[in-house]
Amino acid sequence: MTSPFDIPVGNFSGHERQEVWKLKHDPELTEVGPGTPCGEYLRRFWMPVAMTDQVGDLPYRIRILGEDLVLFREKKEGKLGLTHLHCCHRNMSLEFGIVEDGGIRCSYHGWKYGLDGTILETPCEPPASQVKKKACLGAYPVIEYKGLAFTYMGPAAQRPPFPVMDTFDEEGDELVPYLITSPCNWLQVMENAWDPFHVVYLHTLAVRSQFIDAFAEMPMIEFHESAAGDFYTNVRRVGDFVWIRVHDHMLPSFTQNGGHFPVPDRSRYFGRGGLTRWITPVDDTHTMVIAWRHFRDPEFNDDPRGLTDKSQVGFGKTDFYGQGPDRTYEQRQRDPGDYDAWVSQGPINVHARENLSFTDRGVAKVRRMLRNAIRALQNGVAPAQPSDHYTGVIPTYAGDTVLRIGPQEGRDDGALLKEISHDVARIYRSGDHLAGAERRAFIVKALQDYEAGWA
Amino acid sequence: MTSPFDIPVGNFSGHERQEVWKLKHDPELTEVGPGTPCGEYLRRFWMPVAMTDQVGDLPYRIRILGEDLVLFREKKEGKLGLTHLHCCHRNMSLEFGIVEDGGIRCSYHGWKYGLDGTILETPCEPPASQVKKKACLGAYPVIEYKGLAFTYMGPAAQRPPFPVMDTFDEEGDELVPYLITSPCNWLQVMENAWDPFHVVYLHTLAVRSQFIDAFAEMPMIEFHESAAGDFYTNVRRVGDFVWIRVHDHMLPSFTQNGGHFPVPDRSRYFGRGGLTRWITPVDDTHTMVIAWRHFRDPEFNDDPRGLTDKSQVGFGKTDFYGQGPDRTYEQRQRDPGDYDAWVSQGPINVHARENLSFTDRGVAKVRRMLRNAIRALQNGVAPAQPSDHYTGVIPTYAGDTVLRIGPQEGRDDGALLKEISHDVARIYRSGDHLAGAERRAFIVKALQDYEAGWA
Amino acid sequence: MTSPFDIPVGNFSGHERQEVWKLKHDPELTEVGPGTPCGEYLRRFWMPVAMTDQVGDLPYRIRILGEDLVLFREKKEGKLGLTHLHCCHRNMSLEFGIVEDGGIRCSYHGWKYGLDGTILETPCEPPASQVKKKACLGAYPVIEYKGLAFTYMGPAAQRPPFPVMDTFDEEGDELVPYLITSPCNWLQVMENAWDPFHVVYLHTLAVRSQFIDAFAEMPMIEFHESAAGDFYTNVRRVGDFVWIRVHDHMLPSFTQNGGHFPVPDRSRYFGRGGLTRWITPVDDTHTMVIAWRHFRDPEFNDDPRGLTDKSQVGFGKTDFYGQGPDRTYEQRQRDPGDYDAWVSQGPINVHARENLSFTDRGVAKVRRMLRNAIRALQNGVAPAQPSDHYTGVIPTYAGDTVLRIGPQEGRDDGALLKEISHDVARIYRSGDHLAGAERRAFIVKALQDYEAGWA
Repeated sequence: MTSPFDIPVGNFSGHERQEVWKLKHDPELTEVGPGTPCGEYLRRFWMPVAMTDQVGDLPYRIRILGEDLVLFREKKEGKLGLTHLHCCHRNMSLEFGIVEDGGIRCSYHGWKYGLDGTILETPCEPPASQVKKKACLGAYPVIEYKGLAFTYMGPAAQRPPFPVMDTFDEEGDELVPYLITSPCNWLQVMENAWDPFHVVYLHTLAVRSQFIDAFAEMPMIEFHESAAGDFYTNVRRVGDFVWIRVHDHMLPSFTQNGGHFPVPDRSRYFGRGGLTRWITPVDDTHTMVIAWRHFRDPEFNDDPRGLTDKSQVGFGKTDFYGQGPDRTYEQRQRDPGDYDAWVSQGPINVHARENLSFTDRGVAKVRRMLRNAIRALQNGVAPAQPSDHYTGVIPTYAGDTVLRIGPQEGRDDGALLKEISHDVARIYRSGDHLAGAERRAFIVKALQDYEAGWA
Repeated sequence: MTSPFDIPVGNFSGHERQEVWKLKHDPELTEVGPGTPCGEYLRRFWMPVAMTDQVGDLPYRIRILGEDLVLFREKKEGKLGLTHLHCCHRNMSLEFGIVEDGGIRCSYHGWKYGLDGTILETPCEPPASQVKKKACLGAYPVIEYKGLAFTYMGPAAQRPPFPVMDTFDEEGDELVPYLITSPCNWLQVMENAWDPFHVVYLHTLAVRSQFIDAFAEMPMIEFHESAAGDFYTNVRRVGDFVWIRVHDHMLPSFTQNGGHFPVPDRSRYFGRGGLTRWITPVDDTHTMVIAWRHFRDPEFNDDPRGLTDKSQVGFGKTDFYGQGPDRTYEQRQRDPGDYDAWVSQGPINVHARENLSFTDRGVAKVRRMLRNAIRALQNGVAPAQPSDHYTGVIPTYAGDTVLRIGPQEGRDDGALLKEISHDVARIYRSGDHLAGAERRAFIVKALQDYEAGWA
Repeated sequence: MTSPFDIPVGNFSGHERQEVWKLKHDPELTEVGPGTPCGEYLRRFWMPVAMTDQVGDLPYRIRILGEDLVLFREKKEGKLGLTHLHCCHRNMSLEFGIVEDGGIRCSYHGWKYGLDGTILETPCEPPASQVKKKACLGAYPVIEYKGLAFTYMGPAAQRPPFPVMDTFDEEGDELVPYLITSPCNWLQVMENAWDPFHVVYLHTLAVRSQFIDAFAEMPMIEFHESAAGDFYTNVRRVGDFVWIRVHDHMLPSFTQNGGHFPVPDRSRYFGRGGLTRWITPVDDTHTMVIAWRHFRDPEFNDDPRGLTDKSQVGFGKTDFYGQGPDRTYEQRQRDPGDYDAWVSQGPINVHARENLSFTDRGVAKVRRMLRNAIRALQNGVAPAQPSDHYTGVIPTYAGDTVLRIGPQEGRDDGALLKEISHDVARIYRSGDHLAGAERRAFIVKALQDYEAGWA
């Protein structure tokens, strides 16, 4: 006879596992403040820090890598300046400063700074004052492009060229920026992109198809190296088609995805991606996704069903599901998205509590690469830069290719898909010496020839 | 001549007593996280953790003893599960998980857990994966009863039977649960119940009679031991009546009170209490009162004036004054209640600042008992459990007995009341071998005979 | 050819200067809690702690120098009491206490305290209880005057007389109190008053003339010592007039300013100031300005344009710009005031990041004086008190004198202004042996004679 007080049967091990509450985050990969190993590593790269739409005629206070900064647009040429927040005289915040021609002026005693932090004027000081020469405000150079402000916060002498990707300015493509902040460490946002399997579950099987139904199929993943970083192929068999979806990854946080809402129901050659994205740490427990969404002319359309929406892309929002806190708690519980996944891992995810497995190959790989690069820098080895290998525009690969190659009699289809994914990766890379429309034509032709070879 | 600048006369010792600001709380009795002495002690007992009404079709995030947990109702049999909050794969929070038949599934990569935390499915893993066998999620067993969910968070091998009290299922009694959270340490909420004298002041003389006028009379307190814990008698002379009000106390936090709004104006034999209550720590500085209010049929009524109100009892509220933050600050100042007393002692009360005195005998006693039990456990002595002494339902005593026994010529009335309180305690315990209506009849008869003996 | 990706030219030194983020505040001058060197120093002075308008029939909880206190008005004579917040019995907060004749009573068990913290009653204790004699609540003496409550929180044996300034009760002057809290350390609020140059920039040139246009002229500053503290003269040439504006400073935080909206367009002799002000630390990162605004009869008017407004002066507000958070963030950015200057230096300003220069002589001076006084106290030397030198009312100097003294043929005007400022300071001090109307007449006459000597 059962009683309401019967104790459930099972191997309840909560008490044995209470050591999980004592485990700590991995500071080497997660802490980003000034002087930290990871922070110094991240500072060796150009990174976006704001949407320039947010900078009007007033100074704009931001926090990047644990540093409080002010971004402003000087009035003469409209150039952006980025300096430490506090005036180096008496520390009043320059968010209350006066934006002027060529710089910003503190409103307390009127010290004026140029874009590089040089003190231009100290109006309350006597003429003989030497303080202008002795003092200086910390500042970082800014590059503004298509609605984003990029900066470099590392040592001036080690500043790399700005890496210009082929996807920054493509024919028939409009870039629309967005920026969304998450209250968690940068690494868990970044790793999400190295994890192609969560697409199957979180975005498709968990509740509903948040993107496309075809994501329900478990992909075969192959990692490939390019001169500037990694890319990986998600290969899926869709009837008589082989769908190769390519994602770019360059350390520390640059990623580009495949098409946004593709439908793999016809041949498609070197279709390009819907998202060019960086992860910029605000501090150890806050992170910004700063990105461009690509909106392409019909000829290059990756959205045959019209599910994208330019008007939804901007400050704090974008046009695909689950990227921010823009939903009720109940809605987040009923239909969780990427934001809910990475934020709910905690302010800083504790890796020691995890059980990484087969599907986490990408996550394990990027942690390993990141750790190696951080340690190398500590040993004096400068991080690899995309520009180490390219003097001009850097070729990237993200996007979708769909080839009509049916299952082959007598061959294991998995082995076939793997072979094709490597062949396609090789074809993509074979155009690296070309650029723009010429490169596109070369790759498209090669893919068509390759597809024809299987007919 | 006085001046407005005359310094007040007096022995102002604020500066000498500024050491109070340096004194610290007593971690041994107050800190409840995993691995703390008190936390380990508390984990050896079944305790309520939620009102089950709060658990719908979504997972319900809670925090108990410093651990973040998720409570859910699996869909097949409607059983409650309670696990660590973070999926043991990659730490996504299971508050965003999917409640299914027999368990809960993480929405990130689909790992499914049984009620005991066993991994049932890892759908993105290849068939040969061994991770299901190696990993496991921390989980605790749950018993659900009359609107409350109880769990045990201690070592599985030391799990005691669930202690079923006689008051859980009495004839003519309806139990209505409530739960109220206070932003302070558990001990100050618990001690309030061991302090019968605050009833005189806080609840009666301070501002107004919050319960009944008869509480204004200072009680005589006698402590008694039962096999399962302590109970104490508050004895008061009310004209020709002797009113014996009994409260149950079992470590660590179980208490039962006398009747809710009794009026001691006629004989009453073994009337039962209005409140069965536990104190469950959320963490070191937050605490839940989780309780059942008893609503009895007229035959057993402890509320002759109709002051109780079932409709006010529930999540975050109850039907008697001052138990939660449900009043303005001014109202709390003008008519403070229990909540204001225990919360305003601070996040963790600093015992070293106190001056315990006569009225704090109960407080001193429970701290001593608690400290001894905590230290005993650290020395390997398992805490006493109510079930050590009873194989079935455990007899308790809380409630009111009113006997018509006038002052006795030539006898000190205080000595008389003390004698009667011990006699009544003895009579109560003499029914321990019986249960239910049989026990009640036995005790009532014995009390009537005892009363008649004084006539 | 320029490219959008051209890196800005300049000497960007942000990375080199990232050590600023590691620098720490100076605890010796900023930390004010019990037992800290600065806290002990500040406790040696009477200071205002509240506006008495805020104390009604309920206890009023405040925090001063890191101590939680309760201020109340006992009911018999209406005297103010100030005690430690927590009842010394069981630590319930006395903000929930009952204000009674001659004291306050804790509502938990009814312990009643006199104004000096003596325990007057312990109603739940038995008659023989000795606890009243053993225990005592920390309390501080209170003086109430013109809407402010002053206290002394240092050792009782070292309590100085209450320093009564001449400005507390002048003919034709009404004092209106105000109190505004800022979320930052006390020192940055205090230093603002030692910095006469921010008036030129922040209040005049930065955005608009917040006070009077004449502030745009850089003043010549001369520091002078009085028996009770310092005062300094801001001297400006205004056409044929020499305008001497005097500010009082007494450690630790007493300041009096010149007239509120003066117009230096005619002779004026020993005009008095618009503001008598103290800086009272709440804790290390919160600070109150507690002050009287002076509203004078037309004869003594310092506001010829009628810009002051008594109705705007009170709890959390005053009648001049930028003293509190009573503006939108955009308004604060477009027209920052004193509040924005001192708050935005950070919770505790980091002196090690500053570059003090010529204009910071006052700031440097007060830090030096403060540090010396703090260290002297640690070496057993009691702080100087205004009352060391005066048995009665203490003469102060703040206000404006305007003399018709044109530039002198063949003399450097700067040297002239300096000479005049010292002469005026000497004349002011020469009346120190007099008081009230007699002193005023004496100084006015001497100034008139002095002015006439230049004609």
